[in-house]
Amino acid sequence: MKLLDGSIVAPLGFRAAGVFCDIKRLGTGKGSEKGVKRDLALIVSDAEATVAGMFTTNQVCAAPVKVCVERVKKGRAQAVVVNSGNANACTGKQGLLDAREMAAQVERVLKLPQGSALVGSTGRIGLNLPMENVRHGILDAAQRLGVTAEHASQTAEAIMTSDTKDKQVAVEVKIGGRAVRIGGICKGAGMIQPGMSATGKRPAAMPLHATMLCFITTDAAIEPGPLKAALESAVANSFNRITIDGDMSTNDTVLVLANGLAGNAAKNLRNPKSAGFAVFQEALNFICLQLAQKIVRDGEGVTRFVTVRVSGAKTLADADAATRAVANSALVKTSWFGGDPNWGRILDALGYSAATIVEENVDVGYSAAGSRKILWSLKRGQPTKATFKELCAAVAPKEFDLHISLNLGKASALMYAADLTEEYVAFNKGNVADPGSLGG
Amino acid sequence: MKLLDGSIVAPLGFRAAGVFCDIKRLGTGKGSEKGVKRDLALIVSDAEATVAGMFTTNQVCAAPVKVCVERVKKGRAQAVVVNSGNANACTGKQGLLDAREMAAQVERVLKLPQGSALVGSTGRIGLNLPMENVRHGILDAAQRLGVTAEHASQTAEAIMTSDTKDKQVAVEVKIGGRAVRIGGICKGAGMIQPGMSATGKRPAAMPLHATMLCFITTDAAIEPGPLKAALESAVANSFNRITIDGDMSTNDTVLVLANGLAGNAAKNLRNPKSAGFAVFQEALNFICLQLAQKIVRDGEGVTRFVTVRVSGAKTLADADAATRAVANSALVKTSWFGGDPNWGRILDALGYSAATIVEENVDVGYSAAGSRKILWSLKRGQPTKATFKELCAAVAPKEFDLHISLNLGKASALMYAADLTEEYVAFNKGNVADPGSLGG
Repeated sequence: MKLLDGSIVAPLGFRAAGVFCDIKRLGTGKGSEKGVKRDLALIVSDAEATVAGMFTTNQVCAAPVKVCVERVKKGRAQAVVVNSGNANACTGKQGLLDAREMAAQVERVLKLPQGSALVGSTGRIGLNLPMENVRHGILDAAQRLGVTAEHASQTAEAIMTSDTKDKQVAVEVKIGGRAVRIGGICKGAGMIQPGMSATGKRPAAMPLHATMLCFITTDAAIEPGPLKAALESAVANSFNRITIDGDMSTNDTVLVLANGLAGNAAKNLRNPKSAGFAVFQEALNFICLQLAQKIVRDGEGVTRFVTVRVSGAKTLADADAATRAVANSALVKTSWFGGDPNWGRILDALGYSAATIVEENVDVGYSAAGSRKILWSLKRGQPTKATFKELCAAVAPKEFDLHISLNLGKASALMYAADLTEEYVAFNKGNVADPGSLGG
Repeated sequence: MKLLDGSIVAPLGFRAAGVFCDIKRLGTGKGSEKGVKRDLALIVSDAEATVAGMFTTNQVCAAPVKVCVERVKKGRAQAVVVNSGNANACTGKQGLLDAREMAAQVERVLKLPQGSALVGSTGRIGLNLPMENVRHGILDAAQRLGVTAEHASQTAEAIMTSDTKDKQVAVEVKIGGRAVRIGGICKGAGMIQPGMSATGKRPAAMPLHATMLCFITTDAAIEPGPLKAALESAVANSFNRITIDGDMSTNDTVLVLANGLAGNAAKNLRNPKSAGFAVFQEALNFICLQLAQKIVRDGEGVTRFVTVRVSGAKTLADADAATRAVANSALVKTSWFGGDPNWGRILDALGYSAATIVEENVDVGYSAAGSRKILWSLKRGQPTKATFKELCAAVAPKEFDLHISLNLGKASALMYAADLTEEYVAFNKGNVADPGSLGG
């Protein structure tokens, strides 16, 4: 596997653009002015592509998500248009008309088949889209489409809201002797604890939990079924394992378009047990995990990136519940911010979680990120001889792993989590004197 | 119903004291020094009392809670000793020995029957109690017991941790022609979303959810069964309906001691359908609700007190889940802090809750605290004509009610909730350079 530049335009046959059309602050300008954040993105494949998607399971579901859920079912698409600054959520019938019109305009301007454009939105909930601006943006973006790394970066910028950095990655792998490329961009920052499914319906076993948007392109030739299976698996172990504030968005969306221009044989990616599929899955996993982790690291006000690893749970549901309770506890998250190895708050969160735990069985420890050299603070419910100073040193780094063993069974789970900081609160309280500044 | 001064010593035959024995910062002093917060409380009844209790359903349960659960079963007690600054939670066998020794010392010093003293603790989790200091404190408190309002205030101070104000209330009612008094003190501040039951076991239907401690005294003559029933009902509608940060503590405890010295006939309080019981229940409800609301108003960093009222839910479980999702959403809570009437975040939280909701049915509005004059921001999922300025004015007061109607059924629920502020985060991140300053 080889890293490439250019994210979504690294695969053959994809063009992209990101422009400014002034969606958030109406009437203050038009076009891609220098120094103004771009807010409309367009990604287009030269050939019709296979598509798969994963969507928020929030019962309040934004209009663009409804449009995508419906269109992705066909398994075919050719373009994605995305705006930031307005979520087009809780916008009723007009919202749905607007989302459809965004897609339709892209199809008209680019002469694509009807129903082949997908749509995404992120930003404040409950405001109708400024469609005049959106239309200008789409026309502008369609003229600026290109295949350079700069085009990819501008596109990645256009989907950002409170993100401070754009998020891009691309890799190349060999499948059946052919070079296949996968690239992706995403955005996150707040309202982040995705729980996505392919239908937007919540499976009974699924944990209840941002706006995060992720758009992936690949030149692999792969049929819709295997593409969907690969995406579900990749998302389950990446985007669905992150949390910033525990709030699941109305707009979470991951889309992958596969246009086949790499020229591999689609049959090499048909059987999930084949070597070809394994390589593709591995590459897609890498793309999703890299992007998901970038979301946590760039979360609103985030200063710590903590991988919470629970093992020894009775059941998978228990492992998941225990991991999420710790990763979402306000008190645990503020102690991370303070560099306080407060295992008492961790045990407290485990204790009120839906997971079965036995206090006298619990181990809690810390390691450097990705290391198995664990400094245990608690073994079988009893404090170890590790000193407060040693434990403080273990949680001082910007990134570390928290290890919890329940010692009751064999199930394990992990979450990529962020701390809770004053900056998060200051950002999200907003400034009502400047409604344009208010977040989603 | 008449308000009285003196909280826990307002009922006949109760004495109390609060002293300083330096539990948190070891070895820096002894005795009740001027300007140093008291940290050990003692409440004693002149006569053996009927007792009932409600306890945290956290699976990690502090040693004092275990001792109380066991002793309250007998239905009889005569004293309560409580320390702040150390939760005596996650302290293993030594913790249990220490909790029992606290009770035993009170019984020896005050010549009470064995097993008649109850015990409570609040503070940092995971440290063993400094028993030398505790012993000095108990001896000191036993000598200082008294029945004045000042004694009550010192006792209320001694159970405080990060609370900025003591929390006290007392009332007098007439039952069977006799004046009966009920008084209570409590503490809260952080790790507050109690979910208590009489056994410490979590009923299947109970929501999964601080340290809050509450001690209630009454001179009513009432048997253990009716006292337990009255307490369960009062707690269900008060302490179990509050949230500050959504974290349920290992130590939550409510105890009520009824010593019978009012001289009413216990049979007047035997039948839950009798007029006497109704009056007692009403008074106990008032005491619990007043104290519970004081906890929210004095929560860590709290600037807003919001009563979240959900109606029209399909089931009670749905009403509860919807109310708790909104009341615990980091994004909803930060918008309250910012004075931002952000109904988008409210709908988002409803949507990811376990409650069934239909976006097109939801009404969201605001009123002054306790008022039914509601300014609707959303009706049947659609924004009303209320302006952003009007809505901002509705959420500007320090206290207001948030009204949500799901329009799907007849079930309703409410929560007393607090905003999430930078001060909450600053407080809870603590200062690891000064471990004595670190919270629970």
